[in-house]
Amino acid sequence: MSVIYQRVALIGLGLIASSMAHAMREAGIAGSVAGHAKSEATRKAALEIGFCDEVFATATDAVKDADLVVLAVPVGAMAAIAAEIGPHLKPGACVSDVGSVKQAVIEAVAPHIPEGVDFVPAHPLAGTEHSGPHSGFASLFRNRWCLLTPTPQSRPEAVAQLRAFWEGMGANVDEMDAPHHDLVLAVVSHTPHLIAFTMVGVADHLRRVSNSEVIKYSASGFRDFTRIAASDPTMWRDVFLTNKEATLDILGRFTEELFMLQRAIRMEDGEQLHAYFTRTRAIRRGIIDAGQDTAAPDFGRVAAAGGATALKGKE
Amino acid sequence: MSVIYQRVALIGLGLIASSMAHAMREAGIAGSVAGHAKSEATRKAALEIGFCDEVFATATDAVKDADLVVLAVPVGAMAAIAAEIGPHLKPGACVSDVGSVKQAVIEAVAPHIPEGVDFVPAHPLAGTEHSGPHSGFASLFRNRWCLLTPTPQSRPEAVAQLRAFWEGMGANVDEMDAPHHDLVLAVVSHTPHLIAFTMVGVADHLRRVSNSEVIKYSASGFRDFTRIAASDPTMWRDVFLTNKEATLDILGRFTEELFMLQRAIRMEDGEQLHAYFTRTRAIRRGIIDAGQDTAAPDFGRVAAAGGATALKGKE
Repeated sequence: MSVIYQRVALIGLGLIASSMAHAMREAGIAGSVAGHAKSEATRKAALEIGFCDEVFATATDAVKDADLVVLAVPVGAMAAIAAEIGPHLKPGACVSDVGSVKQAVIEAVAPHIPEGVDFVPAHPLAGTEHSGPHSGFASLFRNRWCLLTPTPQSRPEAVAQLRAFWEGMGANVDEMDAPHHDLVLAVVSHTPHLIAFTMVGVADHLRRVSNSEVIKYSASGFRDFTRIAASDPTMWRDVFLTNKEATLDILGRFTEELFMLQRAIRMEDGEQLHAYFTRTRAIRRGIIDAGQDTAAPDFGRVAAAGGATALKGKE
Repeated sequence: MSVIYQRVALIGLGLIASSMAHAMREAGIAGSVAGHAKSEATRKAALEIGFCDEVFATATDAVKDADLVVLAVPVGAMAAIAAEIGPHLKPGACVSDVGSVKQAVIEAVAPHIPEGVDFVPAHPLAGTEHSGPHSGFASLFRNRWCLLTPTPQSRPEAVAQLRAFWEGMGANVDEMDAPHHDLVLAVVSHTPHLIAFTMVGVADHLRRVSNSEVIKYSASGFRDFTRIAASDPTMWRDVFLTNKEATLDILGRFTEELFMLQRAIRMEDGEQLHAYFTRTRAIRRGIIDAGQDTAAPDFGRVAAAGGATALKGKE
């Protein structure tokens, strides 16, 4: 592939930024990669591993002459970084980010983008539970979605160029407006994560059931909650604080619905429960048909000793 | 291995019973296997596949001369079956079951067990989303837990024999009393399933987010909810109706906790959220350390196209 941006500056050098660096180099779509991280150890690692050509102690130095600047810091930290780099951005450059929430990022960053610089927010739906500069790998975005949420000010050419860049790293790219992105993610990600955190918390301090039992028998369904509840606390704190309205909206619907089912259990309304559970199966089939998951029992999960295979029909 | 029960009768020939038949034959721990299913097609399948030596149109004929009788029907159907077979059980025989709830099964079955016959309830924590006589396979119970909940009347010899039988089929066996079993399962399985059913239901009828989007971006966390929400509606209806008290108890704790976090989001109490999310990570680590799951990103799930790999750090 040919070079899409002559110089890319990565602000923040964690899992996502380091994976992007590996991926863009593998694809040959970046001329050079500059990086900035607050921690000197992280900057050193970036050079040692070799996914950055140069690293800088300040974000302002890192963005100098960059054609693409990617903000890969927690959502809560973006406003300060944007204010810092704004005056140092090269005319014609494009600023993007990888935040999990988009309206808040736009509010934090857009005001600091000068005339003649584009801002195209992005959110790659990819990650692992690991973090830091050592955790990145080139294939992280392959066949994953990257959602672009252009603002009215984003020039179509700038959006098209960023799309080509993400496609070059192997991602499938979709565009939607920021409020819709935040609602969709509240449904498919943010609320499920809060619920998982909650269920794991309940199990954690339940006295009559020892943690050892919870862990031992976790394959009975609970384990999948612990997986999604294992994500980075700082990132998730920022997600809920910055996607507050959509999350509270979906949470409200969730609790209404849960109370309806709770009442059906209390009233022993078997018909209502059966009808409800029958409806929810269809979505799962849709996900398998859409190739979003495997139909193999337990997703073809690598079985571990002691009941590791998740249970679908029989708990 | 040597024969543990000369004759085993399976009442109900679905996923669990057919898997037991395959497993006990492979291990050579059953002299002969008799089966009963209401549906003639199922009985025919059992003979064609060959996991039963004989099938019977009535449960009473199937249990004749059986040394072990396994009730593998939905929990709601056990009382009627027990009443039917009670008078036909062979003296010295052992009756067991595979129900997901144990107190309700004991209440339904125990009154029908005659003098001189043992009753040892059991619950293998294993299954897949598939069902019926064709879905069984010999390795289903390998390295899975099977929980025995003996009653005060169960003779230790009978319990030991059933334990050896399940170990012969590859399971790890634990014993606990029925009320504790029902509470543990309410925490690790029943409540998580109800919550998953609910979240999937919310997404299903959310108008502003099309199902296609929910499915397309499901790898962002939601997919794991759809997996556990895909289980058999009849089985789950019976689970919630028969483990009502424990499920309502855990649900109550869950909603209290959820409201606390919901309030923290509304009040923008980032510290409380961060502290909570940090605590829940420990349980996940415990599960990986205990060998209940793999630490490989996304559990080493077989990646499917279009974002199938689950996202741990970045939604």
